[in-house]
Amino acid sequence: MDLPKFVVSTCLCLIAAATMRAEEGMWLPNAIPAEALKAKYGFEGSPALFERLQKAAVRFSTGGSGSVVSPAGLVMTNHHVGSDMLAKLSTPERDLLETGFHAHALAEELPCPDLELNILWSIEDVTERVVAAAKGSADPAAAGAAKRRAIAAIEDESEKTTALTSEVVTLYQGGRYHLYRYKTFRDVRLVFAPETAIAFFGGDADNFEFPRFDLDCCFFRIYEDGKPWEPEHFLAWDADGAQAGELVFTWGHPGSTNRLYTADHVAFMRDVEEPANLRRLWRNEVKLQTFMGRGAENARIAREDFFGTQNGRKSTQGLLDALQDPALVAGKRAEEAALAARLAGRPEAAQFDRGRALVTGSLAAWRRLAPDYFALERRFRGGDLAQIARMLVRLGAESRKPSPERLPEYGDAGRASLEAMLYSPAPIHVELEIERMASWLAGLAEERGLDDALVVRLLEGQSPRARATALVRGTSLGDVGFRHAVAAMNERELAECADPMIRFVLSIDAAARAARKAWEDEVDSPQRLGYADIASARFAAFGDSVYPDATFTLRMSYGTVQGWTSTSGEAIPPFTTLGGTFLRAEARAGDPAFALPASWLGARGRLQADTPFNFVSTNDIIGGNSGSPIVDADGEIVGLIFDGNLDSLAGDVVYDITRNRATSVDARGMLEAMRVVYGATALVDEMTKPVQPRR
Amino acid sequence: MDLPKFVVSTCLCLIAAATMRAEEGMWLPNAIPAEALKAKYGFEGSPALFERLQKAAVRFSTGGSGSVVSPAGLVMTNHHVGSDMLAKLSTPERDLLETGFHAHALAEELPCPDLELNILWSIEDVTERVVAAAKGSADPAAAGAAKRRAIAAIEDESEKTTALTSEVVTLYQGGRYHLYRYKTFRDVRLVFAPETAIAFFGGDADNFEFPRFDLDCCFFRIYEDGKPWEPEHFLAWDADGAQAGELVFTWGHPGSTNRLYTADHVAFMRDVEEPANLRRLWRNEVKLQTFMGRGAENARIAREDFFGTQNGRKSTQGLLDALQDPALVAGKRAEEAALAARLAGRPEAAQFDRGRALVTGSLAAWRRLAPDYFALERRFRGGDLAQIARMLVRLGAESRKPSPERLPEYGDAGRASLEAMLYSPAPIHVELEIERMASWLAGLAEERGLDDALVVRLLEGQSPRARATALVRGTSLGDVGFRHAVAAMNERELAECADPMIRFVLSIDAAARAARKAWEDEVDSPQRLGYADIASARFAAFGDSVYPDATFTLRMSYGTVQGWTSTSGEAIPPFTTLGGTFLRAEARAGDPAFALPASWLGARGRLQADTPFNFVSTNDIIGGNSGSPIVDADGEIVGLIFDGNLDSLAGDVVYDITRNRATSVDARGMLEAMRVVYGATALVDEMTKPVQPRR
Repeated sequence: MDLPKFVVSTCLCLIAAATMRAEEGMWLPNAIPAEALKAKYGFEGSPALFERLQKAAVRFSTGGSGSVVSPAGLVMTNHHVGSDMLAKLSTPERDLLETGFHAHALAEELPCPDLELNILWSIEDVTERVVAAAKGSADPAAAGAAKRRAIAAIEDESEKTTALTSEVVTLYQGGRYHLYRYKTFRDVRLVFAPETAIAFFGGDADNFEFPRFDLDCCFFRIYEDGKPWEPEHFLAWDADGAQAGELVFTWGHPGSTNRLYTADHVAFMRDVEEPANLRRLWRNEVKLQTFMGRGAENARIAREDFFGTQNGRKSTQGLLDALQDPALVAGKRAEEAALAARLAGRPEAAQFDRGRALVTGSLAAWRRLAPDYFALERRFRGGDLAQIARMLVRLGAESRKPSPERLPEYGDAGRASLEAMLYSPAPIHVELEIERMASWLAGLAEERGLDDALVVRLLEGQSPRARATALVRGTSLGDVGFRHAVAAMNERELAECADPMIRFVLSIDAAARAARKAWEDEVDSPQRLGYADIASARFAAFGDSVYPDATFTLRMSYGTVQGWTSTSGEAIPPFTTLGGTFLRAEARAGDPAFALPASWLGARGRLQADTPFNFVSTNDIIGGNSGSPIVDADGEIVGLIFDGNLDSLAGDVVYDITRNRATSVDARGMLEAMRVVYGATALVDEMTKPVQPRR
Repeated sequence: MDLPKFVVSTCLCLIAAATMRAEEGMWLPNAIPAEALKAKYGFEGSPALFERLQKAAVRFSTGGSGSVVSPAGLVMTNHHVGSDMLAKLSTPERDLLETGFHAHALAEELPCPDLELNILWSIEDVTERVVAAAKGSADPAAAGAAKRRAIAAIEDESEKTTALTSEVVTLYQGGRYHLYRYKTFRDVRLVFAPETAIAFFGGDADNFEFPRFDLDCCFFRIYEDGKPWEPEHFLAWDADGAQAGELVFTWGHPGSTNRLYTADHVAFMRDVEEPANLRRLWRNEVKLQTFMGRGAENARIAREDFFGTQNGRKSTQGLLDALQDPALVAGKRAEEAALAARLAGRPEAAQFDRGRALVTGSLAAWRRLAPDYFALERRFRGGDLAQIARMLVRLGAESRKPSPERLPEYGDAGRASLEAMLYSPAPIHVELEIERMASWLAGLAEERGLDDALVVRLLEGQSPRARATALVRGTSLGDVGFRHAVAAMNERELAECADPMIRFVLSIDAAARAARKAWEDEVDSPQRLGYADIASARFAAFGDSVYPDATFTLRMSYGTVQGWTSTSGEAIPPFTTLGGTFLRAEARAGDPAFALPASWLGARGRLQADTPFNFVSTNDIIGGNSGSPIVDADGEIVGLIFDGNLDSLAGDVVYDITRNRATSVDARGMLEAMRVVYGATALVDEMTKPVQPRR
């Protein structure tokens, strides 16, 4: 592995920084790197263009991105972003993941049980107010708590005055605080999805690889007052698609990166956090696979968990592979030394040192507090019923406090989203719930030993599976009406509630809250404070040309359509074709992950074989960007982001233009397949016929 | 889970012990529980019968059991015991695991590259000599070393005087030492194997489950002087098979059990050892599956590793599930308390306490020493080439010492077996070797961190995969001639050897040996001594009616053909049929693990559907018993052990007659399938036509 680009670039002199950093960057919508774009590509976007792109960009509550693509509220995303809904809308008799779905009329569109879509409407910098709230606080823990209270107050205020969903976003790992206001939609209906066999053609083997051949798309429609929403802003399609070398943009919601982490912190990720993540993922993957192997219905109900686990495992493995190259942390250390040298003699030098020391100190607390915090709070698992039980138990307790004093997820601001989740009519699968709870309990016993006090309390003398069976079969929380009843209970009624799952979560709630508080005080708050110091030092050295780490909020990335050269020296071209799909299926015959659906086999002769199907570009993206539109200089759709190559998985900590690639479904291949394979001409016409009004 | 049977039984009074213990027990061939068999079943075996069964029982170097089944040296075992050879005899063009194999004449039988078969010829109790050797030793470590030297001397002596392969077996975890002498065969040829699709029908999903429908058989032939061996002892077939309720025996080689472990030791297994084993297995399973998903050839070359990993994972999971029932260790503690009470006031009481204290003390050393010992020695992995490199490096160094002073595996006694492995012409797959080495190196980095001194030394500044690629592509050890050349090097030549894999293992050899010595001194030796004390206490309380834990040596188990009642109350009948196989395949259509091979689909109409195919019995078996013959009271074959049910996986620590079941291929189903599906009439005739001489 070469020295990662990021390391080199940020050591370089200020003036050249923006261009030298090349396509790296997940830019805030209110801090587009206009000069760099103009200098390198001669590109100048109008405010109207940027507004359209921002307000056509959609955030999915299932953890992905999307875009508004018709004047009748049609939303495009990935199949793997919509698959959670496809699973919830399926039954043993009608498996939409298997068969796909196509509504031929509005009346056939399927209402989603608990999907929430958000569109970013405005941004306000509230850094001063948040920081000021912590001014008098003696230590990091008190400062952190004060900031959390200030944030909750700002969010509540904003929701009351604007009726927009309001979230304060922590940028630069603690260096800035911005208030984001969203237009929120909860009446969302499924319109079209292909079969998983072509949406995820190649399965785990081809995931994060290239060449790929995937129709990873899915369409929903936003409704308002029972009718299709008529948006002011939506995206048009570029019928000619993108050409090799063309400048393209993504507007989407990258979930999380850690590029601003200190070298010590990255080494800690490498040696502690990511190996622990992988161990958990390996375990879950095998356990879920075993569960699914027991029968077709098991396979159906666990598929979403399984896909998520495999996907997480492959991306975490890719990241760890990159981290385990000794050159990576060495590069981070060199970068830090260069920054320290640049700051020498300035007040920010001490700030930089103090920030790094705070972060490094927090890592020891991490090791000490992680077992309880992860077991009881952050990775409290055990299935949907257990999560619902915890939410209900806490909802009651938290609602009795003023909003800013509550655990943030129970604040007034997020209440509607919380209730949508809590009272969702989505099916709950008893066998899967037992499996999840048994696996979670057994995992605690593996980590802590069966004689550990917490484990003894949770198992009540039973084996993990026997206990899980008793809890899941004994609870009434599968009934949404009972959930409402529990939510209405007062403190005494709740304490006396006989439901075994409620009693189960009550028995550990105090311990879980204590573990969370310790974590916030000794890990989170010092890190925030430390990274705020480091951010100040970076701003002092590089100005505002530094972009913040990803936060599952809207970001723009730019790049060009181009292939790359693999480590073995092979040149990988940027495009695949529809025809190549059939050749790939033939080459991998016998592997079920490469079996094309009947619809495609039957349509082979009618598909234009040389139509571009998937392509790669240098855009800097990461998980959460799934479903982002990829547009040309006019803001017209040329594709749909759905993946990155293996090297892009290092993107959590570094970006390297010679190897990181984002992967999209090509607009041409997508429209051709929808027309020819699925006969979805009405849908294609809805998206491509009207001319996008130029503003 | 009920209180395990073993716990109850050993607390019961002496006189009733043998019968109360029911079918539990893996009995030494020189300590058959004759009285119990006579009392319960009226069975009396003649010495001639027992000699025939002993000398027809075969131990496979690939880790299983078998039996001599014709006067021309034919040996029957499981497909999954022979599969290692099937893989080694395969090429990308001719995949014997996929297609099966059938030699229609002696000339077509395929010589196996490195298979060794052993038949137990005699047993001698050498306990006194081994114990006497340690008499003057001050501490457990010195006593352990003295015993190991005495054992090596006994083995060397025996091989020199008898020309039989000689092994001293440690019984009762250190309570007894027996010298076993084996007749050894290395010219072994493959005769017949079905396709994996029917041998392992149902795959991982049905492994360790019942009902099953598997033709898990495989036949080899022993040659002597280039001609089929003509054995004095071989087994005949019972054409009528076994009936429900019939008394049946297995003679095979159970690998390892830990039923004599103390309660503290079992709790340690539950909380530390087995969770660690599972973590490793989960990791390897996912990594191998990812490797195999990259293409058909990858899938072919990694299949054996993968099957072994999945099989180990499923059995370890079953064991851990049993251990995580709080009742299990509670039962063990109750048993110990009862034994202590029984010994009260006798000198053995102090011995029992001292033994338990020694064992408990060794567990702290285990935790402390495990990271280095497992990394450098016991789980030194990284592929065949790395193993060969280590063997070569050590072979030279150890050969310069007197045999009893060497690491035991380099003693004179085992030299021929070692060389068969070391100079095996079996294919070595470069891509799989890289994968194994990269996985092993990455695993060390996960466990110890990338900055750990050992990891830094092993990686030499590269990422695990880059380093693995350099080592595997750079070494010449794939060439058997080069291995001979390295073995012939003197100390100085070896130190100067430029081969990267030789240099790699040399660089950690001293550290690995030190880790091993520490482990032997502080874990193994105290445990041996402790269990010797405990064994004495048990003998004092129960006499010789206690059977020793399994040691991959010949054991007899008895039981009856019978089903069981599952925890959900379902009665599981003991037999499945050939016809049921097709129904199961239809019920699980779409799952590749349940796809029958073409040979079976084509033969469906010609197979007698109601022929028994697989059956369960109460015989007490465990891993290593795979391939054991299961015989009736006349010593005639009624089936072939290949599996146990899920509950039998607790058999490592407990046996419960109400639930533990051994699973066999029924003799009738096997012979019918061989005749009808494969036209192997000559083979069937060879086994069934000659009448077994009664002696």
